[in-house]
Amino acid sequence: MRVRITIEYDGTNYAGWQTQKNAVTVQETIETAIFEATGETVRITGAGRTDAGVHALGQVAHFDITMPIPAEKLSYVLNLVLPEDIRVRESIGVQEEFHARRDAKAKHYRYAIYNAPHASALYRNMTAHVRQPLDVEKMKVAANFLVGQHDFAAFQATGSNLKGTVRTIYSLQVTQIAENIYIDITGNGFLYNMVRIIAGTLIEIGKGQKQPGDMATILAGVERKYAGATAPARGLTMMSVYYEHSLG
Amino acid sequence: MRVRITIEYDGTNYAGWQTQKNAVTVQETIETAIFEATGETVRITGAGRTDAGVHALGQVAHFDITMPIPAEKLSYVLNLVLPEDIRVRESIGVQEEFHARRDAKAKHYRYAIYNAPHASALYRNMTAHVRQPLDVEKMKVAANFLVGQHDFAAFQATGSNLKGTVRTIYSLQVTQIAENIYIDITGNGFLYNMVRIIAGTLIEIGKGQKQPGDMATILAGVERKYAGATAPARGLTMMSVYYEHSLG
Repeated sequence: MRVRITIEYDGTNYAGWQTQKNAVTVQETIETAIFEATGETVRITGAGRTDAGVHALGQVAHFDITMPIPAEKLSYVLNLVLPEDIRVRESIGVQEEFHARRDAKAKHYRYAIYNAPHASALYRNMTAHVRQPLDVEKMKVAANFLVGQHDFAAFQATGSNLKGTVRTIYSLQVTQIAENIYIDITGNGFLYNMVRIIAGTLIEIGKGQKQPGDMATILAGVERKYAGATAPARGLTMMSVYYEHSLG
Repeated sequence: MRVRITIEYDGTNYAGWQTQKNAVTVQETIETAIFEATGETVRITGAGRTDAGVHALGQVAHFDITMPIPAEKLSYVLNLVLPEDIRVRESIGVQEEFHARRDAKAKHYRYAIYNAPHASALYRNMTAHVRQPLDVEKMKVAANFLVGQHDFAAFQATGSNLKGTVRTIYSLQVTQIAENIYIDITGNGFLYNMVRIIAGTLIEIGKGQKQPGDMATILAGVERKYAGATAPARGLTMMSVYYEHSLG
């Protein structure tokens, strides 16, 4: 049986999603939980590989098990053995051909900035602190340049593959609620560090270090050096992954 | 110089506000930070004594120092030495007679419930998880019985002083936003565990274990045994403390 799970995690204490040597990752922790709960050794495939310190409200993964348990019950069983900072929000049985990464049509990421004189104590692990007041209107104008299909080579980590850097951003919204500024990005795919570099560039524009129109120039320049700094991992949360309804 | 500070803290890793032997408390941590930053040994007085695991967005405290530093700068200096889970949001100079606890006219507490099949990973330390769907409309009806001046003896921890249990609740609102249910209570003062017992009683009413009208009976009964269980500390946050404008 192929199972699809939707996962929430606080990435603070993990070396990211993907299993690696000598570090505790989210993927490995869930695989261990599945083994503890079912006795089956499985490899789970996530929709995206979040970095160390990055969070998720709606990461999606799939795996196959043979145990005859109703798929919907698995979330309850897994949450009994998972640590408190990882929760399976939902588990459902899907068609054998469902693939969490390849079938993903779009993803929604949120970058959260805490814009106040002092950092937040309660939300310190989920927000990037920016002390200098940001001009949110300028950030909104700049964000609009990125919506649509573009070559986002300027917004990927240095050293990444320079081919196949065209992506489509369906929506990019900047919202301010009291001290919090949220950058919500939905697109068909993201290059390595793309959301954090976009967030870092928008922060520099909000500070007045760059102008909104510079975003168009940076995009056209297709070189990482023109964009802003990579914003800290802690502000980033993978909110949801979208699939075609027929696969749901 | 008397200084008033407004403090945010994540109470998860503290044995509450008040200094005690063999346990790390918020008060002691701030007093240590003041000593490290100014060389002065001070005793700070908080507006309220939060329990272990209870949080604050707007706890208020006062203390006296002799160091000739602009009071507004103290927040920045203290945040350099404080741990990340405690932040001084603001520091201002006040009149010598200002007293954080005695002068407090009202306090606002929020109790946060995460009402979903599974607990929240990201907000696990700031919410109480309730799996069973709660009837928020019933909780709202029940909450209204508590607004006003009443003897709240039924809503204080067993073994507390039974005299002087009259308090006034100015406002008690139950709000649902997606999986989150917030109980916001503003009153002129609160008995020991009062907010958590009110929250626990409202949860039982939301579950249908008690009826909204039972709240009136419980209040009139003035005995702890009629009220609901004390809801967990992690869901409680001290939001703000109100003073007369002239003291601000």
